[in-house]
Order: sequence, then C-alpha cells, then structure tokens
Amino acid sequence: MLMIHHFIKIALLIYVFIFSSSTVPFDWKASLKKPNIIFFLVDDMGWQDTSVPFWTEKTALNLLYQTPNMEKMATEGMKFTQAYASSVCSPTRVSLMTGMNAARHRVTNWTLKRNISEDHADDVLKMPVWNMNGLQPVDSIENSVHATTLPQILKQNGYFTVHCGKAHWGAMNTPGANPLNLGFDLNIAGHAAGAPGSYQGEKNFGNKDGDKQTLPWGVPGLGKYHGDTINLTEVLTLEAISAIQQAQKLNKPFFLNMSHYAVHTPLEADARFYKKYKNMGLEEPEARFASMVEGMDKSLGDLMSFLSENNLDKNTIIVFMSDNGSLSATARGGQKHTHNSPLKSGKGSAYEGGIREPMMVKWPGKVKPGTVCNQPIIAEDFFSTLLDLAGVKKINTVQVIDGVSFTPFLFQKSKVQKDRTLVWHYPNKWGPTGPGIGTTSTIRHGNWKLIYWYKDGKKELYRLEEDLSENNDLANKYPEKVDELSALLGEYLRKVNADRPLFKQTNQAAPWPDEI
Amino acid sequence: MLMIHHFIKIALLIYVFIFSSSTVPFDWKASLKKPNIIFFLVDDMGWQDTSVPFWTEKTALNLLYQTPNMEKMATEGMKFTQAYASSVCSPTRVSLMTGMNAARHRVTNWTLKRNISEDHADDVLKMPVWNMNGLQPVDSIENSVHATTLPQILKQNGYFTVHCGKAHWGAMNTPGANPLNLGFDLNIAGHAAGAPGSYQGEKNFGNKDGDKQTLPWGVPGLGKYHGDTINLTEVLTLEAISAIQQAQKLNKPFFLNMSHYAVHTPLEADARFYKKYKNMGLEEPEARFASMVEGMDKSLGDLMSFLSENNLDKNTIIVFMSDNGSLSATARGGQKHTHNSPLKSGKGSAYEGGIREPMMVKWPGKVKPGTVCNQPIIAEDFFSTLLDLAGVKKINTVQVIDGVSFTPFLFQKSKVQKDRTLVWHYPNKWGPTGPGIGTTSTIRHGNWKLIYWYKDGKKELYRLEEDLSENNDLANKYPEKVDELSALLGEYLRKVNADRPLFKQTNQAAPWPDEI
Repeated sequence: MLMIHHFIKIALLIYVFIFSSSTVPFDWKASLKKPNIIFFLVDDMGWQDTSVPFWTEKTALNLLYQTPNMEKMATEGMKFTQAYASSVCSPTRVSLMTGMNAARHRVTNWTLKRNISEDHADDVLKMPVWNMNGLQPVDSIENSVHATTLPQILKQNGYFTVHCGKAHWGAMNTPGANPLNLGFDLNIAGHAAGAPGSYQGEKNFGNKDGDKQTLPWGVPGLGKYHGDTINLTEVLTLEAISAIQQAQKLNKPFFLNMSHYAVHTPLEADARFYKKYKNMGLEEPEARFASMVEGMDKSLGDLMSFLSENNLDKNTIIVFMSDNGSLSATARGGQKHTHNSPLKSGKGSAYEGGIREPMMVKWPGKVKPGTVCNQPIIAEDFFSTLLDLAGVKKINTVQVIDGVSFTPFLFQKSKVQKDRTLVWHYPNKWGPTGPGIGTTSTIRHGNWKLIYWYKDGKKELYRLEEDLSENNDLANKYPEKVDELSALLGEYLRKVNADRPLFKQTNQAAPWPDEI
Repeated sequence: MLMIHHFIKIALLIYVFIFSSSTVPFDWKASLKKPNIIFFLVDDMGWQDTSVPFWTEKTALNLLYQTPNMEKMATEGMKFTQAYASSVCSPTRVSLMTGMNAARHRVTNWTLKRNISEDHADDVLKMPVWNMNGLQPVDSIENSVHATTLPQILKQNGYFTVHCGKAHWGAMNTPGANPLNLGFDLNIAGHAAGAPGSYQGEKNFGNKDGDKQTLPWGVPGLGKYHGDTINLTEVLTLEAISAIQQAQKLNKPFFLNMSHYAVHTPLEADARFYKKYKNMGLEEPEARFASMVEGMDKSLGDLMSFLSENNLDKNTIIVFMSDNGSLSATARGGQKHTHNSPLKSGKGSAYEGGIREPMMVKWPGKVKPGTVCNQPIIAEDFFSTLLDLAGVKKINTVQVIDGVSFTPFLFQKSKVQKDRTLVWHYPNKWGPTGPGIGTTSTIRHGNWKLIYWYKDGKKELYRLEEDLSENNDLANKYPEKVDELSALLGEYLRKVNADRPLFKQTNQAAPWPDEI
C-alpha cells in the first residue's frame, strides 16, 4: 500500500516535471525545503502610524497608535529603520514586483484608466508621457512596462502564489489589471484600482449592485460577504488564511502577497476599534484612521496566530512593509503635513515623510529576534531579497534589475553601508500640494540628500542624521556637495532613460539636475 | 469684647490709611470686595505640553501629556486658543509686569548678569545694546527699563502681593533682581536667574553649600527644604499656600504670582510621575519632561483644592499662562523642532511654536465654564486685564502701556477682532539654531503673519488659519500683502524706538522691514 502510494506520488511528480507550463523546470526537491513567504504590505501607512518605534525614540505618534501585533513581530524579528518606497503607490508596487527603480520602469505616478494620466496640470511644466498603463506581462501594451514579475519567478520555482487585496499594477482594460496575468495562482479582491469604494461589508465594499462590480472603486470578488457586518481588512485576512490552507493541501510552499487596501482612503471607522480612539478624544477622521491602523494590525496578529497554531510559523518568513508615507496633505484630521512627525510632510512628498516606511522581517531561527538594522533599503530591493530567501539562484527576467538583496543585513553578515546611493524620481504632478510635493528627482548618498525641482531648478540639500526633519537646507553652505550629488543623480537618470517634464512655453525638456 | 475688637480693627485701618507708604491712598472699602488673583505662569511650556487641546483637535501630544488639573480648569473656565508671548522668557516676563511690548521695553533677550548681553555673536550682524539689565523700579540703572509694575499698582490698591518661583526680571546686582523692589510684599525663591540649579531638595535646589547661595543658579530662600526628598515644584506650591494663608490673616485680597521654574531646564525627573512616562516607552529626557509637566499640573490642582476647601475659590481668579514655546532646539529628546507640533519650531523661534501659549482663565460665577475664546492676545495684555479684573480704575505709570484688557472677551461682551495687529521684536541672537530662530521682527495682522529677517532682508508670509504649521511661504504670491505688513511693522518699530542690529561690515543699521 505504502509502495503504491509512493509510486503514484513519483508518477505525479514526473508528470508535473514534464508537463509543467513553466519555462524553468520545476525543482520539486528544492521546493520541499523552501520557506513560505508572507509579504504583508500596508497601503499609505507612515513610519509613525504604529506603536513600534522606528526611530531611536518612541514618539507621541507611537504612543497614540496601538499595534500590539507589530510590537510582537518587532520583538521576534528584525526592524529596518531606513526602508524606503516611492512617495505614491503604483511606482512602489511596480518596483516591488519587478526589482526596477521607478526612474527605470517609468510607472512614476498612480495608475487607473488606460491611457489616461492622473497627472494634474501645471502652469509651467508639461508632464512626460509616463507609463500610465502600469506593469504588463507582455510587450504589446502602449505606455507600460513589460517585466518578469516576482510571483511569476516564485511560481516557476514551485510556489503557490496568492495575491490578496490591493493590486494596482496595471490600468483598467489591460492584462496587468488582473493579478492572475502577473504570475499569481490566486487573486483575492485585486484589480486596477488603488482604493476600495468602501471598507464595509454593509456597503458591498463599494459595489452598488451587489452582483455587478461598480467601476472603478468597487472591490471585486467578495460577493459572499456583501451585506455582512464585516470590515474589508478582516475579510482579506479570512480569505488569506483559506488560501494558505489551500497551499497546504497542494503541499506547496506559498507566497502570499498580503496587500491590504487599509489604511488608504476612504477613512471609514473600523468598528472593532473605533470607539476606543474616539474616547481618547481624537476627532474625526483621526479616530477612524487609528481604528483602521489597529484593524490592519489585528490582521497581522491573526495571520501570525494561524501560522503558529498550524506549525507553519518556523518555516514562514513574514515581511512587513508599506507603499508610501502617511497621507497628510488631504483627507486627514489635524494640521496638514504633520502626520509623519518627526518626518516632514507625507504621501506625495520627496521629504522623508513621503518615502520612509515601517519595515520588519520575521523568520524564526534565521533572523535574530529583537534586532534593528539601519541599512538604507528601497522598494526594488525586495524583489532580489525575496527571491534570495526563496533560494532562487538563477533569475531570468526581461528587465534590468536595480534592486539589491538585503539578506546580508538580515542575517547580520554585513555592516551598514555608509555610502549607499538611492534615487527617487517623480516627473509628475500629484494634485494635493505641500512641502516637498511637486515635480522632483531626489538622491540620497550616505547621510546626504538632495532634492531637485524641475519647475524652477531649485536644489535642497540635507544631512539626515543631524536633521531628520529636513528643516535646514544646506545647499548654500555646501555648493560642492550639491554639485556632486547633482552629477550622480543626473548620470543615473540618463542611464535608465528616465522621463522628464518639458517647459510649456518652449517645449524644451527641463534640464537634468547636473545641467543647471 | 466685640466692640473692642471692632475698635482695634478700625484703628488699625486708620493707621494703615495714614502711614501707608503707597503714593495712592489705600481704599480699604474697595479692597474688601476685590477678587484674589493667581497668575499661574509656567516656564518654557508649549501650546501642546498638556492633555488640554488648545487647537480645534486633540493631537498626539495632547494624548501623551497628562494634565488632569488643567483639564478641570478648562471645564470650569475659558480657554484662549491664540494667546501669545515672546519667544524667550525675560521679554515676556517684563511685558507681563509692565504692559509694554518687547519692542518698547527693549528687554528683548534673556537677562542674567549686569551689563553682560547673552546674545551670541553673529557673522553678519552686530546686535544692539538692548536693555540687558532688565526691569528696574528706578531710572538710574543703565541698560534697563524703568517702569511701574503690576504688583506695585495692586499693592497700592490693597492687595497682598506675593511672588513665588522664577522672577528673572532684573540682572544680578541690580535692584530689579529682587522681587521685593518690584512691588511684591513677599518673595519666595525669586532672583535674577531664569533657571534652577536643580529641582531636587536632595541637591539643595542647586546650592552646593546649603547655607550659601551658589550663584547664579542656586535657588535662594528655601533652606528649610535642603536635603529633603522633595521637588522644587512641590516646595513652591506649599510655600504659595502658606502665603495665601498669610493674606487671609491680614484680611487682604491677594495677588499670587505663581511663577514656576518648571518646566525649564535642567530636565530632571519629577519622581512622583516619572516612572509612568518611562513605562510608556518614552526615552530620556522626554519621560523626565513629561513628569515635570505633570508635576506642574499637580501644583495647579493643589492650589485649586486649597481654594475650594477654604471657600476661597468663588472669589479667586486663576489665570494660566506660559512664557514662551516649548524648548525644541536643544536639550530635549526626539527630533529637534517638533515638540510643539502642529506648530513649527519652538522656544526662540518666530514661528508659532516659539510664541503660542496655553492660556486659561477661571473665575467661578463670572467667566462661563467650558468656553473657548479665539481672540489673539499677547503678554502685555495681562497687565491691563489683571488691573481691570482687580477693579483698578486709574492707573498711573511711568511707562506707556501697549497692552489692552481682554476682559470684554472673557465676559463674552465682544466678538473676536478679525484684524488685530500684534508685534514681536527680537533684535538678538539666541544661540541654538533652527527654523524661525534668528534676528527677526514679526507682525500678525488678522490671519496674516509676516516675519522679517534682519540678516538678509528675507520676508516670509503666512496665512495662519489655512497653514498653522507655517509651511507655505506666500511672500512671492502676495507681494502687496508683504508691503502692507512691512509698512505696519516698520511704522510700529520706529514709533516705539525699537532697537535694531547693525551690519558688522558697514556699521550701518540694518533696514527696517519697510525700507527693503
């Protein structure tokens, strides 16, 4: 009996080996040892929207927000204090999926409708024709970036790949709008849009007619919860757990892209936690926002509990990340541009408040508990890192990879690099205004950071260690440093064929940072 | 027996009437009805260093600090959301005592030693010879302002006048260093210095040799507490209560200038509250600072309790105020310049974080409980206001009074003035650097605020209602508004004979704001 069972298993494996649709042969031996990966990505969550201090000190915002499960994860894993994303969502999400810097993939602003740029009009600059159709699995879609994606490679390497939540990679009416076309075996509630119509089951998550999706914001595929008193964040958690169970039945390692719509607008109260924050004296919509943060944290806790109850925790890597800074220029309560304090400004800004993210990694027995890493890392690094952690040795992609694996830091095999260079590129106009929000390119080199403004050629220079809040512009004091960073930035942008805006009046391209 | 007692009382009053040293005759009849006044002045306390929201919303800092007695006072009295002081201590304290704007009294920086300016050297500007010897009761002291003081007038009007805590009006070795020379009947622990050597009884409050004052920082006159495990804030409260009891024995209304050294540096833990904040996860020195804030709040609570237990609460006005914004450029934990968020910067700055103060007034039966007033008021207004509340009709002073009584707002007889003009003048250099910290003059006119920098002629323009954090400089957008406010400011500064800095290179006076 046992022999027969064994024989069938081998036969099945041979079948899979021969008839697999993957271009890379399926290595079943390796797959048995592979760790599961949960990439827990929160939307619009800032560096301070948590009770876990990501700075050297606990701040007033850390005391306000209550994220006990993030605290647990921090004590069990490694906390990264200088993890970066782009300042808006789509560029970050495409970098995560492709390993490309935003200047290279050119999905530099947020995407939604095919061939429609969400750029606002500017009085001086004409924005470039950026890749407004987002990420695509083919090379035939105009204004898009064609790339081999992270889940595609993981799938080729034996993973059961699950997308759960906000996708927001390709524009509506393109293949990239559907996560199943981007390498996922399973798609839960993901499509082109970057926000839910509603977080409430009572409101069918934004679908007016329960059976039919209300475009563009109605969340798809959750019909069975329509009308229920349940929050979208909770729904996604339940569905993710059921997807993990599915992977267990398939006897495959899983990659779960746990991509919450929370804590993006609309700021709707998460009824499970709202009253507590209201009673603390928080006004609308800050009490709502705090309740959404704790709802997201509950999801993290539920997933961690499920893993340990099912003996999956030891072989599962959890990576916690967000896609841009906390929204601060609009929709929030309180004074604008203060929601990421001590970081300046928020979502959409080139200042730290727009780009610095809460990031943690937990892998029991592999990543030392309660550790902190100050290595500067950026969205595109996760691509190489996750493949590295999954033991994928050979990566064949159609695109050039910019990101670098940070596993040496994760396993404490490398010291922090004091001189790493990071680049952000935003040849766009978001809409809301505020400090650091505009058409800019930015470079960080070691402790120095330079922001270049295309509109008027202005350059700002900061030393982050001494001035995390970017209050003291040192450009006049260190002109040579300005020139040095401008040259590095200009060189990089030209190398990757970055887009740049034109001057409306002359129709001439705005100068690169080192041309002015 | 009763007759004899009555006779002695009248005889005593006749004696007081004839032999009073006051220049204005003592009106004993009026004095019997006069309300007691406690002016509760905290040092270096910012607009957000409290659980009482002074903005439209409760902020993260409001949730961090715990000041239950201030909360009680807020529900029992009127809260002023736009009360201003100078950005450093001495100018505010002299304005409070004299009713003069700082530009007029010219004690524009903090005082300490006779004829020694605490100004730091600047590379471009030479600072003027300002009134570095502070406030004086005579006209014979060089570099000082001679004025008739608030307690002097109250004393002439029958009040028992008590100073308790930090004085900091006149430089060392001048008459003004001693509160008894400035109109106070009693001085508890006040002298020239603006900070205590220590808050700890165990450290003799900064006196190395218990019997002898250690200059300049050792707190004087508290020998009986030396060596005890007791905090200075508690000592001042106990002594203030005993001073009130003394006033009761004298059967006089009292004016208590309850002028805490707290929450100025040195940031030493108040042992009664420190552990709680440490356990919240706050790092040094923020846990210490928060404990000092709650210690100060306890003092307010103890005074309020004493008043009600002794049936004094109904006839006692309490005014709560601070002398400048919360320290943020030095000594504090956390990121510099963020401790007054959503206000920008802190002590020493022309931005709101340097000058906007927590202010409340409680007068049972007279001031409507739980009310809020948005009228902009400033330090010098308290002089006229307190005299007004004390029923002093005729005020004879050697100085010109700039302040205006805000009693019409307190008693809800007047609507907020949408176009009030306020001026700040700081022709000095503080030392610590940061946003808005420098040699500036500032004007607020209605919702507009202009900051003029003497060093480079720069002008910044903000609209406070829309941009409380002063992030969007509108100077380029509204040049006519810049000119209008510059003219108002220049006119005012010339009218009051304000000091101004010189350019080092040419020895020429820097231009007034409307000359550039």
